[in-house]
Amino acid sequence: LRTGFPEAIWGPGKTVTQIVEIMRAMQQREPVVMATRITPEVHAGIQAELRAVRYFEAARISAIAPQSLPKNCPGTIGILTAGTADLAVAEEAAITAELSGFQVTRLWDVGVAGIHRLLDNRRVIDQSDVLIVVAGMEGALPSVVAGLADVPVLAVPTSIGYGASFGGLAPLLTMLNSCATGIGVVNIDNGFGAAVLAGQILRTAAKISAKN
Amino acid sequence: LRTGFPEAIWGPGKTVTQIVEIMRAMQQREPVVMATRITPEVHAGIQAELRAVRYFEAARISAIAPQSLPKNCPGTIGILTAGTADLAVAEEAAITAELSGFQVTRLWDVGVAGIHRLLDNRRVIDQSDVLIVVAGMEGALPSVVAGLADVPVLAVPTSIGYGASFGGLAPLLTMLNSCATGIGVVNIDNGFGAAVLAGQILRTAAKISAKN
Amino acid sequence: LRTGFPEAIWGPGKTVTQIVEIMRAMQQREPVVMATRITPEVHAGIQAELRAVRYFEAARISAIAPQSLPKNCPGTIGILTAGTADLAVAEEAAITAELSGFQVTRLWDVGVAGIHRLLDNRRVIDQSDVLIVVAGMEGALPSVVAGLADVPVLAVPTSIGYGASFGGLAPLLTMLNSCATGIGVVNIDNGFGAAVLAGQILRTAAKISAKN
Amino acid sequence: LRTGFPEAIWGPGKTVTQIVEIMRAMQQREPVVMATRITPEVHAGIQAELRAVRYFEAARISAIAPQSLPKNCPGTIGILTAGTADLAVAEEAAITAELSGFQVTRLWDVGVAGIHRLLDNRRVIDQSDVLIVVAGMEGALPSVVAGLADVPVLAVPTSIGYGASFGGLAPLLTMLNSCATGIGVVNIDNGFGAAVLAGQILRTAAKISAKN
Amino acid sequence: LRTGFPEAIWGPGKTVTQIVEIMRAMQQREPVVMATRITPEVHAGIQAELRAVRYFEAARISAIAPQSLPKNCPGTIGILTAGTADLAVAEEAAITAELSGFQVTRLWDVGVAGIHRLLDNRRVIDQSDVLIVVAGMEGALPSVVAGLADVPVLAVPTSIGYGASFGGLAPLLTMLNSCATGIGVVNIDNGFGAAVLAGQILRTAAKISAKN
Amino acid sequence: LRTGFPEAIWGPGKTVTQIVEIMRAMQQREPVVMATRITPEVHAGIQAELRAVRYFEAARISAIAPQSLPKNCPGTIGILTAGTADLAVAEEAAITAELSGFQVTRLWDVGVAGIHRLLDNRRVIDQSDVLIVVAGMEGALPSVVAGLADVPVLAVPTSIGYGASFGGLAPLLTMLNSCATGIGVVNIDNGFGAAVLAGQILRTAAKISAKN
Amino acid sequence: LRTGFPEAIWGPGKTVTQIVEIMRAMQQREPVVMATRITPEVHAGIQAELRAVRYFEAARISAIAPQSLPKNCPGTIGILTAGTADLAVAEEAAITAELSGFQVTRLWDVGVAGIHRLLDNRRVIDQSDVLIVVAGMEGALPSVVAGLADVPVLAVPTSIGYGASFGGLAPLLTMLNSCATGIGVVNIDNGFGAAVLAGQILRTAAKISAKN
Amino acid sequence: LRTGFPEAIWGPGKTVTQIVEIMRAMQQREPVVMATRITPEVHAGIQAELRAVRYFEAARISAIAPQSLPKNCPGTIGILTAGTADLAVAEEAAITAELSGFQVTRLWDVGVAGIHRLLDNRRVIDQSDVLIVVAGMEGALPSVVAGLADVPVLAVPTSIGYGASFGGLAPLLTMLNSCATGIGVVNIDNGFGAAVLAGQILRTAAKISAKN
Ligand SMILES: Nc1ncnc2c1ncn2[C@@H]1O[C@H](COP(=O)(O)O)[C@@H](O)[C@H]1O
Ligand SMILES: Nc1ncnc2c1ncn2[C@@H]1O[C@H](COP(=O)(O)O)[C@@H](O)[C@H]1O
Ligand SMILES: Nc1ncnc2c1ncn2[C@@H]1O[C@H](COP(=O)(O)O)[C@@H](O)[C@H]1O
Ligand SMILES: Nc1ncnc2c1ncn2[C@@H]1O[C@H](COP(=O)(O)O)[C@@H](O)[C@H]1O
Ligand SMILES: [Mg+2]
Ligand SMILES: [Mg+2]
Ligand SMILES: [Mg+2]
Ligand SMILES: [Mg+2]
Ligand SMILES: [Mg+2]
Ligand SMILES: [Mg+2]
Ligand SMILES: [Mg+2]
Ligand SMILES: [Mg+2]
Repeated sequence: LRTGFPEAIWGPGKTVTQIVEIMRAMQQREPVVMATRITPEVHAGIQAELRAVRYFEAARISAIAPQSLPKNCPGTIGILTAGTADLAVAEEAAITAELSGFQVTRLWDVGVAGIHRLLDNRRVIDQSDVLIVVAGMEGALPSVVAGLADVPVLAVPTSIGYGASFGGLAPLLTMLNSCATGIGVVNIDNGFGAAVLAGQILRTAAKISAKN
Repeated sequence: LRTGFPEAIWGPGKTVTQIVEIMRAMQQREPVVMATRITPEVHAGIQAELRAVRYFEAARISAIAPQSLPKNCPGTIGILTAGTADLAVAEEAAITAELSGFQVTRLWDVGVAGIHRLLDNRRVIDQSDVLIVVAGMEGALPSVVAGLADVPVLAVPTSIGYGASFGGLAPLLTMLNSCATGIGVVNIDNGFGAAVLAGQILRTAAKISAKN
Repeated sequence: LRTGFPEAIWGPGKTVTQIVEIMRAMQQREPVVMATRITPEVHAGIQAELRAVRYFEAARISAIAPQSLPKNCPGTIGILTAGTADLAVAEEAAITAELSGFQVTRLWDVGVAGIHRLLDNRRVIDQSDVLIVVAGMEGALPSVVAGLADVPVLAVPTSIGYGASFGGLAPLLTMLNSCATGIGVVNIDNGFGAAVLAGQILRTAAKISAKN
Repeated sequence: LRTGFPEAIWGPGKTVTQIVEIMRAMQQREPVVMATRITPEVHAGIQAELRAVRYFEAARISAIAPQSLPKNCPGTIGILTAGTADLAVAEEAAITAELSGFQVTRLWDVGVAGIHRLLDNRRVIDQSDVLIVVAGMEGALPSVVAGLADVPVLAVPTSIGYGASFGGLAPLLTMLNSCATGIGVVNIDNGFGAAVLAGQILRTAAKISAKN
Repeated sequence: LRTGFPEAIWGPGKTVTQIVEIMRAMQQREPVVMATRITPEVHAGIQAELRAVRYFEAARISAIAPQSLPKNCPGTIGILTAGTADLAVAEEAAITAELSGFQVTRLWDVGVAGIHRLLDNRRVIDQSDVLIVVAGMEGALPSVVAGLADVPVLAVPTSIGYGASFGGLAPLLTMLNSCATGIGVVNIDNGFGAAVLAGQILRTAAKISAKN
Repeated sequence: LRTGFPEAIWGPGKTVTQIVEIMRAMQQREPVVMATRITPEVHAGIQAELRAVRYFEAARISAIAPQSLPKNCPGTIGILTAGTADLAVAEEAAITAELSGFQVTRLWDVGVAGIHRLLDNRRVIDQSDVLIVVAGMEGALPSVVAGLADVPVLAVPTSIGYGASFGGLAPLLTMLNSCATGIGVVNIDNGFGAAVLAGQILRTAAKISAKN
Repeated sequence: LRTGFPEAIWGPGKTVTQIVEIMRAMQQREPVVMATRITPEVHAGIQAELRAVRYFEAARISAIAPQSLPKNCPGTIGILTAGTADLAVAEEAAITAELSGFQVTRLWDVGVAGIHRLLDNRRVIDQSDVLIVVAGMEGALPSVVAGLADVPVLAVPTSIGYGASFGGLAPLLTMLNSCATGIGVVNIDNGFGAAVLAGQILRTAAKISAKN
Repeated sequence: LRTGFPEAIWGPGKTVTQIVEIMRAMQQREPVVMATRITPEVHAGIQAELRAVRYFEAARISAIAPQSLPKNCPGTIGILTAGTADLAVAEEAAITAELSGFQVTRLWDVGVAGIHRLLDNRRVIDQSDVLIVVAGMEGALPSVVAGLADVPVLAVPTSIGYGASFGGLAPLLTMLNSCATGIGVVNIDNGFGAAVLAGQILRTAAKISAKN
């Protein structure tokens, strides 16, 4: 991977034919090619044309990638979700990170309304080098995690919720206004972007290590 | 107190003369009369006219009330804040509740970015019969508290914050979208309203008790 | 019921298979299990797998529950709606409360544009220990009811309306800005949440009674 | 009055000199000239130049007008407010209407949280030919009044309130979404505009009368 | 017609069966019964049950009404639209007014981008006693019309538009901020409400005439 | 002028000393230097340091410029305002254009509520090569002008207004949603930007002319 | 072409029959007739009735136009997009311009995240007389282009994006707040409007040329 | 420094006495203590009490810190601004980072409207290990920088701007919607938060280094 990250296609609004064509072109340049927000139906269409494409259902990602990926650089990305409904966004982050050659630890369903489940799994926080925290509804989890963690926290608001959630605006504002320090926020539902930023952080760490 | 609560004047936009006049009129009908959002300067003006008026500075409340108030009904109102900047709103709630004859326990500065301070003071949550949780910025505290508590939680968003807080909109949305159950929300900075609702809840308990 | 409330599943975005699976798991722990926002079609699918599941059509709730529920604690929850279109949200509240073992009184269609229908039914207000007031469009009913009532009022804005209702934002703001005291607001369409908070209030009352 | 209404100057952002100049020019064409949103200080400045100018303090209006105005046309404009804080806007409407030669009945402080005070004064509603209803905070009064009245109701939201009132947005949305029929809404704090529209309605009556 | 207006049902979200039932019940009390926002498919369903129901396709209204309606009271309601796409809302107003026994003059497609078409049809403005002006997109027509007219103008914003129209918010704000006087605004797409208010104005005129 | 436009300083938030310093530096490079949003007080401070600075009070611009400016290129910029309160923004555009060497025609106070005043001055529209149309409140003027004109129309929303104007949001949306074609919109109150764009259009015209 | 531009029909919400009818009527008056936002299905329906209609698929435009269009006036319109997903809006602009007889240069996919691709194609910017810049997501391209260009830049925000894009609000605000000068903004997705304004600018050049 | 960062006080809304008191308490625990958003006047007050306090005027920070700070960990933080008006926020970030012992490189005034100035200074981008990019108005700079950089980019929107900037909302949305990858966003004007997150990233590198 030239830049350290796979080439990625944003699926929505593209036909199967368009995605297949772009994937074919990218394949010339890069060992790993992926498309996000792919429904099972669209994936079936892609695979009929490109046999090598694998589907990561929970992540809604279709990808062409070698069965075993070379390790990108040291460090672990911990990925947490507040609820089970946030899983699709979290898996988008996890699979993107793994396809980029990073090591990932998952911790689902540790929302702040049941704070002890989070505290009982504190070791995931303590053993990660960068954290991606995914939460919809009130989006309060990143604040609590950043208070416990001594590493960068990337907060991903999700559109999970209803009523005064206003399509993810509520958790987005929550995360931007966090009273904890050490939090960077990405767009609503942007698991992919959080994974690339987390990877960028680990790669930077590797570069600094190498320099010193 | 006929309704169980003092008559209250909303201070902003009223002159000293107007407040004094309304207080004099109310004093005829009610043993406790209070005005909210009163600056020290305005209070000085009021007191020049009405010697009996006391000032609760942290709460920005001026009140005429007997030195020792009769107890309204059994039960304790726990009042928590996320930050020290939320104190003015929390004290507005606390003094309103006390002037109404309720027993109050205060717990300041237990925001979610330092979750252990909250957990270390858990007994305040466990020993209260109704909780008022005051928070600005990301407003996440009520969710955590409601997850720990087995009593009604009244959430008060404050206008403390800046930027994407949009005058308290951020914590307001957070509280409305809480994934914890058992939370009722009041207007931004409305400590007074939360205290009356909390009092109303305790009085309901007393009424049901009497019926059964 | 350990916490005094049934375990609840948020239906939207879940497949029949997922709901059935979660219900089966919950059934091990709790006597009452319910799922909200369930369409008749989804319910049919659930029932094909779980014969014991009952459907509360107006409430859009599927539940596994003993035919006669033990009484949770004393007190009555009065539930009012402004219009008939608010009924689905109100029934979500009512059935949730009843499945939790509380006594419920219903009063539909007493919107403020016909104030006398509300006044003619005043006894529902007077005989309830906590009120849930459900209203869409301009959402003015909770203010009037809280003015008449001497008990806590839980206000539920609904997404019923069009144009400048902005998906329930209008009644939500109305309720937050109420000039009446003693009102707590929940998220748009959140009948379930209002019922749990109402139940929480009655249970707290029972606990205080027991202590005194 | 050619158009049946006085010429009006919008005060804010204009210097005393500018207002005096415009008033002098208008005086040539029209018997009644008025300026709105005038503070006592600005009025003092105007009056130093134009002796004939009278000040309507509660309405914040400065006007040149004959001591007794000729009656414009038959009919009565009833003006109601929800709170006393809405008085400045309501008086802007009342004085504008009176300076235009219309008969006005005032009814202050009949907000929906104390519905009986409104009902006790129902005769003001019944005896008016057009109603102007002024309300801030949740702005629910016009809905109740329109339900009781059989005449046009003009709703004026005010910027009175705080927090989630968002400068009058809350009562504005409330009034636009009213489930009562027969309501027309004007801009936030626009007492002047409501008075002109009310006058326009009464003058239409006079014209139809004349035609038939 | 007791109140001078037909009983009206809001169609969206109701089944054919529900609408038929409500219509049957209303028919007992009132000579004219109508339902708004009815698609051709829903109307077909209604008519299969209630033979007497007529369909006003452009207005999306189903109604039971005598073939020739008695005249309600003197005066003419002029209804204007800015574009042809606003026609459905305008016809909702027109048919509601006609079913209430008022006389209506229609003038379509006189948007401000072609101001001469409006001026060429000025006689519609001059010969109406109250005007309903329907406009989407930028919603500027009511301002121009109110400047030309000497009668009340009722402004109806529509959801016609795209992008920064935000579902009708743009024309709504335009109309509320009009620099012309004599304008009352109703909810987005609320042709029905504008017609009732216009009718209310004419009926009030008739009442005043009768008194004098 | 190298780029055909003066160097410009955005005044707000800068001290007199800072503005003087930047002006001195710019003077080395450019014959015309200007600063916008300058109060009379700030100007006095600047002039105490830089004697050559002239003040354009209505435009709130301080500028160093030769008494007679060389003509930039052929063509006339017509500038219109809806109200007199929009004058400061319009003069900002006019003086910017004149300091850039363009010919300007001014037409103030031709708002759509008095359409005949605009029509009576139609020759300003017909004789301009590009039009800048400045309007606050409902912002409807650009639509009418673009319908009459056969040249580009640059629309400038202003923050003049109150209530539902929301700081100029209302006229901004109006202008973006115009049903007339040939309109480009700039930021609220951005008279300067509109003038530069108008000048750019005339200079482009001159370049095309030269090429052909 | 009388006005220099084809007659255009806004497709959404119109039936095939309505579009065919309007096209037939327009054909009497104008040599070029076009309809925008036409799906392939709708076009098929139109063509079954009007054989001469051609379809521009990428632009979603159906048009009746002579095979070779006479040149409208000198000058070139450069059209740029940030991403490939913005292509439909950009082609709407391009085809509208071409059907109006203007010369167009296209440059797709030069978004600011890969600034060198833009710089490598700078000659498109340098050789155009007016630029249309189409961008969704963060909408930053017009600022960079306007900094490089010495001609008018027309910015078209698109609804391409998700989450905090809020349907195109994000790029719209970006473009309105540009710190580059010489930018005029049109409505979200309004390629048609940008093309007409660009054409209007070129035609102004021709008129000034003729005058001098 | 225990956590690697100084203790920080949020200045706004605190009196000199309160700030002094908190600083005194913190000084017991930590070698570096700082307060943000401090005006020169407030600083003067603080220094009268605490002689050791230094003022960083451009950053609006008052701090107690040893003259030479020990280096925290390897790596350089590059800080860029789009305009000079963004300097206060950028300096808040820079001084916070320096007080935390990190090495900082500053690059001011490289906004996207003059892209060559940024490209000419590319070596700042290439030689930094993490970048903080500060921008108001349209906020487009982080997108361009993230496209050029191969390290994490922390984007700080500022409230610099007017009109449709809506207090920093415009650049905030721009940054969240960036089509470049590797960007994390913090609250409007939150230079402090960006510095802590950048420091957190460098410290992670050091920790990974130590582990490997
Ligand atoms: N701080 C407060 N927040 C919300 N409502 C208040 C507050 N203080 C007083 N009120 C309410 O405002 C009403 C008095 O308003 P006013 O008549 O304007 O003084 C009282 O009846 C209270 O219900
Ligand atoms: N209608 C409802 N409104 C709000 N919250 C609900 C509703 N139904 C269920 N819940 C909550 O959602 C949680 C379950 O979410 P989930 O795990 O996604 O099924 C439950 O614990 C309830 O607290
Ligand atoms: N309080 C008010 N609210 C709304 N419009 C007003 C008000 N006072 C004056 N106006 C209108 O503002 C116009 C005068 O504005 P101006 O020319 O700026 O003084 C008058 O023609 C009135 O229609
Ligand atoms: N894609 C478009 N975007 C904006 N305006 C358009 C578009 N297509 C057509 N129009 C305008 O819409 C008008 C036709 O609207 P209509 O009468 O509803 O077909 C035309 O005169 C054009 O000015
Ligand atoms: Mg941390
Ligand atoms: Mg709880
Ligand atoms: Mg009450
Ligand atoms: Mg009525
Ligand atoms: Mg008029
Ligand atoms: Mg034109
Ligand atoms: Mg340029
Ligand atoms: Mg990068």
